[in-house]
Amino acid sequence: MAEAITHTQPLVGIIMGSQSDLKIMDAAAEILETLGVPYELTIVSAHRTPHRMFEYAEQARKKGLKVIIAGAGGAAHLPGMVASLTTLPVIGVPVKSSNSIDGWDSVLSILQMPGGVPVATVALDGALNAGILAAQIIGTTNAAVADKLEKYKSGLKDKVMRSVDELKRGDRDLD
Amino acid sequence: MAEAITHTQPLVGIIMGSQSDLKIMDAAAEILETLGVPYELTIVSAHRTPHRMFEYAEQARKKGLKVIIAGAGGAAHLPGMVASLTTLPVIGVPVKSSNSIDGWDSVLSILQMPGGVPVATVALDGALNAGILAAQIIGTTNAAVADKLEKYKSGLKDKVMRSVDELKRGDRDLD
Amino acid sequence: MAEAITHTQPLVGIIMGSQSDLKIMDAAAEILETLGVPYELTIVSAHRTPHRMFEYAEQARKKGLKVIIAGAGGAAHLPGMVASLTTLPVIGVPVKSSNSIDGWDSVLSILQMPGGVPVATVALDGALNAGILAAQIIGTTNAAVADKLEKYKSGLKDKVMRSVDELKRGDRDLD
Amino acid sequence: MAEAITHTQPLVGIIMGSQSDLKIMDAAAEILETLGVPYELTIVSAHRTPHRMFEYAEQARKKGLKVIIAGAGGAAHLPGMVASLTTLPVIGVPVKSSNSIDGWDSVLSILQMPGGVPVATVALDGALNAGILAAQIIGTTNAAVADKLEKYKSGLKDKVMRSVDELKRGDRDLD
Amino acid sequence: MAEAITHTQPLVGIIMGSQSDLKIMDAAAEILETLGVPYELTIVSAHRTPHRMFEYAEQARKKGLKVIIAGAGGAAHLPGMVASLTTLPVIGVPVKSSNSIDGWDSVLSILQMPGGVPVATVALDGALNAGILAAQIIGTTNAAVADKLEKYKSGLKDKVMRSVDELKRGDRDLD
Amino acid sequence: MAEAITHTQPLVGIIMGSQSDLKIMDAAAEILETLGVPYELTIVSAHRTPHRMFEYAEQARKKGLKVIIAGAGGAAHLPGMVASLTTLPVIGVPVKSSNSIDGWDSVLSILQMPGGVPVATVALDGALNAGILAAQIIGTTNAAVADKLEKYKSGLKDKVMRSVDELKRGDRDLD
Amino acid sequence: MAEAITHTQPLVGIIMGSQSDLKIMDAAAEILETLGVPYELTIVSAHRTPHRMFEYAEQARKKGLKVIIAGAGGAAHLPGMVASLTTLPVIGVPVKSSNSIDGWDSVLSILQMPGGVPVATVALDGALNAGILAAQIIGTTNAAVADKLEKYKSGLKDKVMRSVDELKRGDRDLD
Amino acid sequence: MAEAITHTQPLVGIIMGSQSDLKIMDAAAEILETLGVPYELTIVSAHRTPHRMFEYAEQARKKGLKVIIAGAGGAAHLPGMVASLTTLPVIGVPVKSSNSIDGWDSVLSILQMPGGVPVATVALDGALNAGILAAQIIGTTNAAVADKLEKYKSGLKDKVMRSVDELKRGDRDLD
Repeated sequence: MAEAITHTQPLVGIIMGSQSDLKIMDAAAEILETLGVPYELTIVSAHRTPHRMFEYAEQARKKGLKVIIAGAGGAAHLPGMVASLTTLPVIGVPVKSSNSIDGWDSVLSILQMPGGVPVATVALDGALNAGILAAQIIGTTNAAVADKLEKYKSGLKDKVMRSVDELKRGDRDLD
Repeated sequence: MAEAITHTQPLVGIIMGSQSDLKIMDAAAEILETLGVPYELTIVSAHRTPHRMFEYAEQARKKGLKVIIAGAGGAAHLPGMVASLTTLPVIGVPVKSSNSIDGWDSVLSILQMPGGVPVATVALDGALNAGILAAQIIGTTNAAVADKLEKYKSGLKDKVMRSVDELKRGDRDLD
Repeated sequence: MAEAITHTQPLVGIIMGSQSDLKIMDAAAEILETLGVPYELTIVSAHRTPHRMFEYAEQARKKGLKVIIAGAGGAAHLPGMVASLTTLPVIGVPVKSSNSIDGWDSVLSILQMPGGVPVATVALDGALNAGILAAQIIGTTNAAVADKLEKYKSGLKDKVMRSVDELKRGDRDLD
Repeated sequence: MAEAITHTQPLVGIIMGSQSDLKIMDAAAEILETLGVPYELTIVSAHRTPHRMFEYAEQARKKGLKVIIAGAGGAAHLPGMVASLTTLPVIGVPVKSSNSIDGWDSVLSILQMPGGVPVATVALDGALNAGILAAQIIGTTNAAVADKLEKYKSGLKDKVMRSVDELKRGDRDLD
Repeated sequence: MAEAITHTQPLVGIIMGSQSDLKIMDAAAEILETLGVPYELTIVSAHRTPHRMFEYAEQARKKGLKVIIAGAGGAAHLPGMVASLTTLPVIGVPVKSSNSIDGWDSVLSILQMPGGVPVATVALDGALNAGILAAQIIGTTNAAVADKLEKYKSGLKDKVMRSVDELKRGDRDLD
Repeated sequence: MAEAITHTQPLVGIIMGSQSDLKIMDAAAEILETLGVPYELTIVSAHRTPHRMFEYAEQARKKGLKVIIAGAGGAAHLPGMVASLTTLPVIGVPVKSSNSIDGWDSVLSILQMPGGVPVATVALDGALNAGILAAQIIGTTNAAVADKLEKYKSGLKDKVMRSVDELKRGDRDLD
Repeated sequence: MAEAITHTQPLVGIIMGSQSDLKIMDAAAEILETLGVPYELTIVSAHRTPHRMFEYAEQARKKGLKVIIAGAGGAAHLPGMVASLTTLPVIGVPVKSSNSIDGWDSVLSILQMPGGVPVATVALDGALNAGILAAQIIGTTNAAVADKLEKYKSGLKDKVMRSVDELKRGDRDLD
Repeated sequence: MAEAITHTQPLVGIIMGSQSDLKIMDAAAEILETLGVPYELTIVSAHRTPHRMFEYAEQARKKGLKVIIAGAGGAAHLPGMVASLTTLPVIGVPVKSSNSIDGWDSVLSILQMPGGVPVATVALDGALNAGILAAQIIGTTNAAVADKLEKYKSGLKDKVMRSVDELKRGDRDLD
């Protein structure tokens, strides 16, 4: 898997079924960058490169990954199939692709895994949350990442409070 | 795949994700028997036996199969993954398993395959139709099977006409 | 049916309920061209030309067709009605027409056929996959088509690998 | 169509796709009886007896029918196909058959007819209302039937008022 | 109801819940014009003018209407409430209004009427079909209208056949 | 409306479309009893007794009611129509009636009211919550009812804490 | 909560999960202004400022609020959580946010509250109706507000009647 | 939180909204037992014990928990609210409670969390998978647990292979 973009020893592998998913999946990479979690990112298609998917999933733990984030749309089999081939936690991102039936296909084919093979599913197009969840997993034993997560959470609150203040200062003409 | 039940050289491979799918998938086997199409039937789980699935799909054409029927429920990845590994036509049967959300998960995760990798999807729990469709595919070049399909179609009509006659003879008290 | 576009002896008949479906259904014709499968293409409306539909379906096998691809939207009855009139395999393409309720009507009225009369349903607007599936059916006994299908499958993989390489070469600024 | 149950000159033709729909469709026959509208009732399957369906629909006006009620389940094509073959008003009854996906398939494949070919759709399993609607159509020019409809409507009100009285008389122990 | 647009003695009353429904409901008026059926058209809101709705529904039969077409969106109560106040056939048109949840609310609140009070429901935004259905009802006893309906049906077929011819003459570059 | 069950001057009117809704709607009456809010309860059908509905809604404020709770199933027009006829707050209870499509019809035809005419919708079969909500409205200006609501809320918490204690005491064999 | 926009002693508190909800929620503020009901408006995020939400909900009654309107999108927990912390009536507005699955997530996570903790849910993006409902609650004991509600209701009717007149005067070319 | 059932230092906290969820959520406890992961289990209701929920979520990390599993039904706010109060990974289990609309409410109100606050959602009633996922998270840094997960995965495969053998040995009469 030398072709993947790497940052020191990656702890999280971000994969997606198609290059067109990149505009959604980028959010996972960006937040991991922000939270100081090294990752790699590449394209692995369950349906067009099944052997590559097998190899990626089976080597993931050996090469040091702790979590896999897999995004896919439509009949989205990538997250579930990767989960069938590794005991690492797999986070699934349902992508609302162009031919999707309003995203229901992506959501259900990732979420409704049979007993024994979980996929940690996030919201439709929820790559940002996939990245945060991966960092939370790393943060269970990595104090530096846990600390960055606390700061990120504070930042979410601060942003709300700033909009509260703007409203109070009459920054918009409600009256 | 010596473990599969075989009848002379099987032309259709019927697989399913779990033993619990057998009560639905049997209908495919029975109609193939009726239509004179040799088949094999076994259990192949995408999520619990992924290597077995790979091997089954990749050897299918070599060992003489013409069509694969794959039934699965919930996040049903078996038909689509088999289709990613062979150029044989793959017929998918969405099974309404016990944890399914009314069958929508099975239907959408089989039907909504991405461009390039089709699955011929039949109705929810539609194993009978999967068997007929497989026979229709065989029947495109096998006159004997085509002939049995015509007879089967006539039989469907005859059964309706018998119920029409029963109604006419007053076999029930509508008036 | 002399009005249909023909290429030598067509093996696949592509029909659709309305001229407006052509922009979707073209993908089936194009891939059959690519895969070397002769086809014909015309418009047959279940609801506006029911006799033409009857005639088309009942003559299909006699005139040498092996597979019928039928696309329709809304209350899409064309694929299922054609299937009721022939023992050839019928592939149904649910088209997301302008008045459709998000495509659910097209999908369900094609997919949920009663026992005895299958339609091989593909994804919403999945005409490309309908064409490939038709070629797979031809390819069960036609080595040349089977070979082209293998090459097409390799091409799908190659395209993914090229996007993997682009990503590796830093063709985009993720970092 | 001599096989249909007739009562003097039938004005309404009740058809259904399968004998199993009879337990639902009976309600249409019963209410027509009550409202004094002669009808005939038989089984016509779109998918198993397509020629019979054509013949039934095309002869309907000639033989004196004024309205057709057609009930079917799953991918329910009977009402729409009959409507494509006659200019009589066609009332469709979506039946929640055993393999239906909660009735959505029956409802959508009857309701969502394309422009030009209407089907007057009633509620899921709404055969009673189909019968009343047929009588209302007859009643637009038949004073006797219109009068019976008014009486039936009064009866609906009276039944509510009786339950109001029961409640007032303390026929149940709410307090 | 003198305010309604009238053409000689109207036989069909077209009403809708809001002026914004007019762009959809116009199709009903236009086709009735084409089919020679006199109609009136006005706005009657179930929720904003309930007394007007009562008056309209209760006077409909007396003033000579034979059919009422009622269009509404969202929680669409107009068709059903009108049906509760008259024994004329009421045709309901679910309108996909701006706040609708993809049209499901309009469809279900018109279609799913309780036993005793039918509404003849047509497709989402199906005002054209509502007009045709009203004409079909008039046509059950009016030979001139029935004749125009036959011609309209022929016209539908002719339009399909013209598009078939265009395709045959190579009017588009499929090859 | 003398026929309604009354307790001193009722403040809440509980109405429902059919006697069969009583088994669901009883929960509203019971909780109002508990919370010390006098109520009346009767049957008012939008579709079978529209004049009674008009009269009930228009007299509600005059006779001293402060809130109306209206329960109905299927195409549930009662809550919305009552809301169109009064400026009292109307609480709608979607009832999952026998012919309902999984309750979606009841929910959407109550919830999706157009701008100008609100219905305060509670969960499917949520009559208990309708009763509490009515009491909360009364409690905005009635200290005794507000106090009972606080006690009821404490009771909810106490019940949870008792089940926590049972679990802690090992009242079940999880280990 | 000094940061909230106030108008004399506010009786209604309008809160929303995010600044982006303001374009929808403004309609609630505007109609309360029209109806003469003093309100305050601010941003309170269940997920980003949970302590602020607790404080807001628990102080609401003490500081004189009578009703809380809470708008949120996606997994919309704000209305239900506020309802768990106060005995004031809470009105929930499901907002169709950008990542929502067609609004279903917002609707269901606000509507389907468990027994004991009601939320008065209005239509998707129905902030106008939330404001009217809040005024109706105030109007149960405030004659001035009740009077303004009657005038508002008359205004709705007048607007319909004006569009009826426009239609009658031929303000559009239907013929 | 002394009331929770503990096993040495618990690493996983299993909470649920109601005692009635226990029959579903038990599966999480059982598999953690099997996989050697110490856990605690208790009842925490978002809507009935909001302060307890706050306290539980905010103390979770301090008291040594690494992962929280939260199960809830209907408008299921527990997982998302806990996630808003901790930076530990939170796994959400949608429970199909008795009043649920087929489980869609539980699924959507857990899955569709806004950006910034992820919940790792598993299948409807998927408590077994929630337990495995929690163990996988622990197993990213705990070799013993990782090893048990590998053995569990092997066991899943072995069980499939045993059913394959049974089928091969003719343990059922398919022929």
